[in-house]
Amino acid sequence: MEKLLTHISSPKDLKKLSLDELPKLAQELREFIIDIVSTKEGHLGASLGVVELTIALHYVFNTPEDKLIWDVGHQAYGHKILTGRKEIFDTNRQLGGISGFPKRSESKYDDFGTGHSSTAISAILGMAMASKLNGKPSKQHIAVVGDASIASGMAFEGLNHLGVTDVNALVVLNDNAIGIDPSVGALKKYLTNVKAGTAKDENIFECLNLTYSGPVDGHDVKGLVHELERLKHVDGPKLLHVITTKGKGLKKAEEDQVVYHAPGKFDKVTGERLKKSQVVQPPKYQDVFGLTLVELAEKNKKIVGITPAMPTGSSLKYMMEKMPDRAFDVGIAEQHAVTLAAGMATQGLVPFCNIYSTFLQRAYDQVIHDVALQNLPVIFCLDRAGLVGQDGPTHHGVFDIAYLRCIPNLTLFAPMNEMELRNIMYTAQMGLSGPIAIRYPRGRGVTLEWKNQFEPIEIGTARCLKEGAEIAILSVGHIGNEITRLLESLNNPDSIGHYDMRFIKPLDKKTLRTIFKKYNHIITVEDGCEIGGFGSSVLEFANQEHYSNPVKIFGIPDEFVAQGTIPETHQLAGIDFDTLHSYIKSTLDQCD
Amino acid sequence: MEKLLTHISSPKDLKKLSLDELPKLAQELREFIIDIVSTKEGHLGASLGVVELTIALHYVFNTPEDKLIWDVGHQAYGHKILTGRKEIFDTNRQLGGISGFPKRSESKYDDFGTGHSSTAISAILGMAMASKLNGKPSKQHIAVVGDASIASGMAFEGLNHLGVTDVNALVVLNDNAIGIDPSVGALKKYLTNVKAGTAKDENIFECLNLTYSGPVDGHDVKGLVHELERLKHVDGPKLLHVITTKGKGLKKAEEDQVVYHAPGKFDKVTGERLKKSQVVQPPKYQDVFGLTLVELAEKNKKIVGITPAMPTGSSLKYMMEKMPDRAFDVGIAEQHAVTLAAGMATQGLVPFCNIYSTFLQRAYDQVIHDVALQNLPVIFCLDRAGLVGQDGPTHHGVFDIAYLRCIPNLTLFAPMNEMELRNIMYTAQMGLSGPIAIRYPRGRGVTLEWKNQFEPIEIGTARCLKEGAEIAILSVGHIGNEITRLLESLNNPDSIGHYDMRFIKPLDKKTLRTIFKKYNHIITVEDGCEIGGFGSSVLEFANQEHYSNPVKIFGIPDEFVAQGTIPETHQLAGIDFDTLHSYIKSTLDQCD
Repeated sequence: MEKLLTHISSPKDLKKLSLDELPKLAQELREFIIDIVSTKEGHLGASLGVVELTIALHYVFNTPEDKLIWDVGHQAYGHKILTGRKEIFDTNRQLGGISGFPKRSESKYDDFGTGHSSTAISAILGMAMASKLNGKPSKQHIAVVGDASIASGMAFEGLNHLGVTDVNALVVLNDNAIGIDPSVGALKKYLTNVKAGTAKDENIFECLNLTYSGPVDGHDVKGLVHELERLKHVDGPKLLHVITTKGKGLKKAEEDQVVYHAPGKFDKVTGERLKKSQVVQPPKYQDVFGLTLVELAEKNKKIVGITPAMPTGSSLKYMMEKMPDRAFDVGIAEQHAVTLAAGMATQGLVPFCNIYSTFLQRAYDQVIHDVALQNLPVIFCLDRAGLVGQDGPTHHGVFDIAYLRCIPNLTLFAPMNEMELRNIMYTAQMGLSGPIAIRYPRGRGVTLEWKNQFEPIEIGTARCLKEGAEIAILSVGHIGNEITRLLESLNNPDSIGHYDMRFIKPLDKKTLRTIFKKYNHIITVEDGCEIGGFGSSVLEFANQEHYSNPVKIFGIPDEFVAQGTIPETHQLAGIDFDTLHSYIKSTLDQCD
Repeated sequence: MEKLLTHISSPKDLKKLSLDELPKLAQELREFIIDIVSTKEGHLGASLGVVELTIALHYVFNTPEDKLIWDVGHQAYGHKILTGRKEIFDTNRQLGGISGFPKRSESKYDDFGTGHSSTAISAILGMAMASKLNGKPSKQHIAVVGDASIASGMAFEGLNHLGVTDVNALVVLNDNAIGIDPSVGALKKYLTNVKAGTAKDENIFECLNLTYSGPVDGHDVKGLVHELERLKHVDGPKLLHVITTKGKGLKKAEEDQVVYHAPGKFDKVTGERLKKSQVVQPPKYQDVFGLTLVELAEKNKKIVGITPAMPTGSSLKYMMEKMPDRAFDVGIAEQHAVTLAAGMATQGLVPFCNIYSTFLQRAYDQVIHDVALQNLPVIFCLDRAGLVGQDGPTHHGVFDIAYLRCIPNLTLFAPMNEMELRNIMYTAQMGLSGPIAIRYPRGRGVTLEWKNQFEPIEIGTARCLKEGAEIAILSVGHIGNEITRLLESLNNPDSIGHYDMRFIKPLDKKTLRTIFKKYNHIITVEDGCEIGGFGSSVLEFANQEHYSNPVKIFGIPDEFVAQGTIPETHQLAGIDFDTLHSYIKSTLDQCD
């Protein structure tokens, strides 16, 4: 039998179907997603959970005239497939392909780009207020927000404003009781009570002056269509509470929702994940962090761990499992996470606050105002620093060096490998006079033998990896390994020296003086933005101390870097092996 | 009759009083605050409102062993006076004096430094969790949070976590229905219903799993003592809803709460504000913004205005009064404010989003992720950029150049005077291809004749104010007027040129090339942090284009600058007239 999906290239086609055909379409859409994601990888569970909701929304509303925002956007695969991107869906998250998130430049149906959580209510309210001012009061505005995301402060700010407006906006609360990891917090507990029918009279959303309806079954597509049709004619701000199951329709994904958030390749029938190559590989940096933290926390009882909603992604889960009273998932609440850590630090605890580099942007003020200004020894571990690959520009952690370097009292460190990460964690928990931020990338380290004996690191000291005569390469972080490899490929020429500067702040001025005196050419290399970055700090140093050696800075240029594999994104940014190699080779040739 | 307050140097002394003496003490404390603030200036209304609460808290709890945090801290004057700072209270907010906010380094009774709003719940929770881990379960932990502050996202994140803990923490909701300006939002509306007794059964705080009590009269000190005593023996997280009147006890302050938030000097008996000197002065930058926006919005119907809780401070109030449907106070919700503006911009509106420089730190991720990445033409107006004077280090707006300069797509402009601010606002609303941030300082401009005819400014162009031969001074922003004055005092020497670079990004590279070719010495001057700032961008330029002229950078050094008058803080930072003058004079002498 021919598939209904075959004939659907836009919501217009979808609207030609009868209500009774929608369950069949849902089944097909689900299979289509599973088909592609099983081989091309990507975010699976969230999109499977909203297949019916996606169909119902586009069936009822007049997109793209009506505005529709998918918060976070992991769940928007079905939306993309129904809005003209079915044929190119297999390019999802690839270099040059469609984005894994809604993206304005990609489609007129993507009304607002998402990626970070909890932005949709503010954005849809802005659009709805604009519709009023633009004289289009009949336009509909819908934001689909997950239960983990709606518990974030930014979402609350949006709801708090929405509730005192008279705009035509609908928040669809997609309640599956899980973000990437299971949802936490008092609101989650409350929503559980609502679902169980044990919550008392007045609903929390009604307290915020929203018209509440639900909870409704998010997998009953016909029921959803009816309810959305009804709400279309209810004026003012409203919230529909929809209950869904993450991973719906693929048994394994329903059973193991954390793993099947983004399962990698899997068998599309059984759901079984495909075994990756059996080659033993160096550990992921996140695991070096997570396992080392447990090791340290076993000895130092003052250590606590904090993650805003990333126990799995950060590997804080190891500590949470072993020491549940000392390791905390606080939900999507970066601001709270940082100031909570500050409060703990005032009482003599040693908080490791693990936040992805890109998400620390959410807590920038708290780092300045609550931690650095009071000089509290919070230890920030910034995972996913640098270019992160296929998640693309919303998630690249490339600004941290620039935005942290200007904060007084803060030490900033980038480990080149697993041992450096372990040693700086060891050093930090021994007691620093102020806060430190440790940035390390997505992906794996460099060695199988990474569980070294701890050794303290002297704050503000660089490592000379190789002496040279003419050209000094100064790197920070993991990208230094590319320099090592590159020099090996050039047979370690005598003229090139290599320094792992590791402390972006405080700079090792003593070593820098040696370098500027000894070498004619200085090259800096970092996996972060060029403007205001590590290279820039070297320029500031040289200027202060009146050195005039030419400095070549390799970093991420002043643009948002697209998605691709990590090597591809490094290439886009001009900090890949080949680009570095050809520059260094030609500088070397000039020196000869 | 001798005053009770005379004998109170610490909470220990306070505890010697009988319950019946407390109302008298409240009266005295109120008079003491009025006495000092009437002549020394400062924040008045908030502290008058919590006189009874302050006494009751220190009477009931065992501070500083028990932990007490004052959110924001405007209301902590009584707390300071009762905890050993009575004799030096007249140095409040002055250089070398006590801080206008709680400050850890100032007193053991100041458990957590505040200034920015909504941090107290997170910090007190961190302390309470630490007490549990440190084996001190009987310790009490109290956060006093205003109703405007508790509606901010960060506070919600704290409550959402607090509600699923079993810690011994009390949130005192100080509900006076006003922040600096009247509170807004759905939660405020809800709290009004609670007070009126018209809210339904389940309380919103109970939904979040907190034990709720109240509302109680915040000016009945004996009642407060009883209720706090009772709550001391209630386990787990709890919230006490206290109703207070901002400005309580000074009639004028109760009647005009916005003005008497920080009224300047006033008659301590009548409350009448003292007339300032009748000398006609140049306008405040905030008024240039506020009045110019009205002027522009009258012609351009697409313009909207947004402020997060600063209608008075930003002067957006002018537009809110004239065009209430197009100018919005969204409450203490910087994150929401920015993404709301982004949503509006997608629909063709022209949003002016006015946020103090220091508070934009709260919305850093939204500027990157929601505005700049999507290249939406939001116009950010950053008031209070640079050193702000007596509010001190929590409020200095000194990091914005560094943290904004690294963001792709964003234009960054600092007007040197009123006309420049007007013209860039005019230019921006005509339609830019992407976002712009306009930073201007606290305080006044330079001319009485500031309502110039609008002229467009070409993006990325500097102004040459004076040609020279040897030394080029490159300034950005209002501080450029100091250079003009300084050159006049030196009789405008032929050897010195002065350029108002005005665009920090994009840099005017053409003019910079001319400058670097023509002048031997380059001096940059900015009212922002040196690290990663404007001077640093000039170094980056020079390095890229292989210029080796020495560059001397004047900016704020890598430390948190203390409080004082604005001239005093400039002096502390080494960017004051005298410091600049002596450097430039000596450079000039060397050139001769």
